[in-house]
Amino acid sequence: MDLYEAMRTTRAVRRHKPDPIPDDVLRRVLEAATWGPTGGNAQPWRIVVVRDAAKRRALRDLYLPLWQEYSKEYMEASRGLTGEAAAKRDRMLGAANHLAAHLDVSPVIAVFVFDVRRMAITDEGLGRPSVVGGASIYPAVQNLLLACRNEGLGCVLTTLLCKAEREVIALLEIPQPWATAAFVPIGWPASKGHGPLTRRALDGMAFGDRFGGALFA
Amino acid sequence: MDLYEAMRTTRAVRRHKPDPIPDDVLRRVLEAATWGPTGGNAQPWRIVVVRDAAKRRALRDLYLPLWQEYSKEYMEASRGLTGEAAAKRDRMLGAANHLAAHLDVSPVIAVFVFDVRRMAITDEGLGRPSVVGGASIYPAVQNLLLACRNEGLGCVLTTLLCKAEREVIALLEIPQPWATAAFVPIGWPASKGHGPLTRRALDGMAFGDRFGGALFA
Repeated sequence: MDLYEAMRTTRAVRRHKPDPIPDDVLRRVLEAATWGPTGGNAQPWRIVVVRDAAKRRALRDLYLPLWQEYSKEYMEASRGLTGEAAAKRDRMLGAANHLAAHLDVSPVIAVFVFDVRRMAITDEGLGRPSVVGGASIYPAVQNLLLACRNEGLGCVLTTLLCKAEREVIALLEIPQPWATAAFVPIGWPASKGHGPLTRRALDGMAFGDRFGGALFA
Repeated sequence: MDLYEAMRTTRAVRRHKPDPIPDDVLRRVLEAATWGPTGGNAQPWRIVVVRDAAKRRALRDLYLPLWQEYSKEYMEASRGLTGEAAAKRDRMLGAANHLAAHLDVSPVIAVFVFDVRRMAITDEGLGRPSVVGGASIYPAVQNLLLACRNEGLGCVLTTLLCKAEREVIALLEIPQPWATAAFVPIGWPASKGHGPLTRRALDGMAFGDRFGGALFA
């Protein structure tokens, strides 16, 4: 697939068929993740590919109450929306509710873990949340999402299960001091699947030479 | 370009020509960034596109001493390498030294900033470094890197300048409470440019159902 066409249509796909993913397809999307950059090329992440049905159910059982709590807050925060924005939110919530109740239906849940000792973190101690550890993980995740799109597989980047990290570590036998960073359910789309994205226009996202500055004359 | 071909050859390109990047090319690679996913589709990041020569020199002057300190530590830590691994390290360090001394030569430095108030961070308070804020930034950065590859532009994801965040905020007039996440110098390759990656084999990077478990039978 053409790179831009893949990027332009890689949206969250949250309704999956239970059909299995062939090994050769799975291998291609996972290998694409390995091509992502990491600080000092340390590759401090691994993926635990959860296919076991009992473990997928266990992840769903951890996810569902976290999602119910989060979605309640999200509804409160977005109460002011009206018209098309509200309709969009409701469609998203409908799909996300479905995902939470059916997380175990996706044939694969790709769990990204990272080695706390080998992260290049340059934004600690700045008096605000640190994000730079993610620079050695989420480029690989994005490669995986794009590769899934390329193969016709639906998926979505989730991080809520980090809140249940202790239970996930026990379930997937993750050694100390590895930690969890992302959970990507993957499956063949059961509904509309890929398509156009809802994003702000570039003018509001990129500036020239200073924050708020015009990018192009 | 084909998606997998782009991913497979998107390596760090640290030697750039000073030639400017046409507006239409720049617009395409920046727009690709906007297609990245973010938590709750909040899009809590922006890019300050630094083209002004004096500001690029100022960023270089901040970067160079940070790089000199970091590279000294990196040399110490990798002192045990021999043979091809040592040669690879030395080639990387040579290119990175060049970048540090010539950061202002790259016609564009894309500075990713984020709104601390609008990050969905689900891994706080776990007694280990938080990374999840990065899930709403670095997928966009990876899209930018891949789009540059697609256009023949070289670039590299750097985060060292976060250590000089206070100075960067003053230089680029970044309002409170926005913070810095990534600095991507972009330019036409002055040397070999894109090509094959050095990565661990998939077998060591992905496991089946538990950490360390075999992925394929």
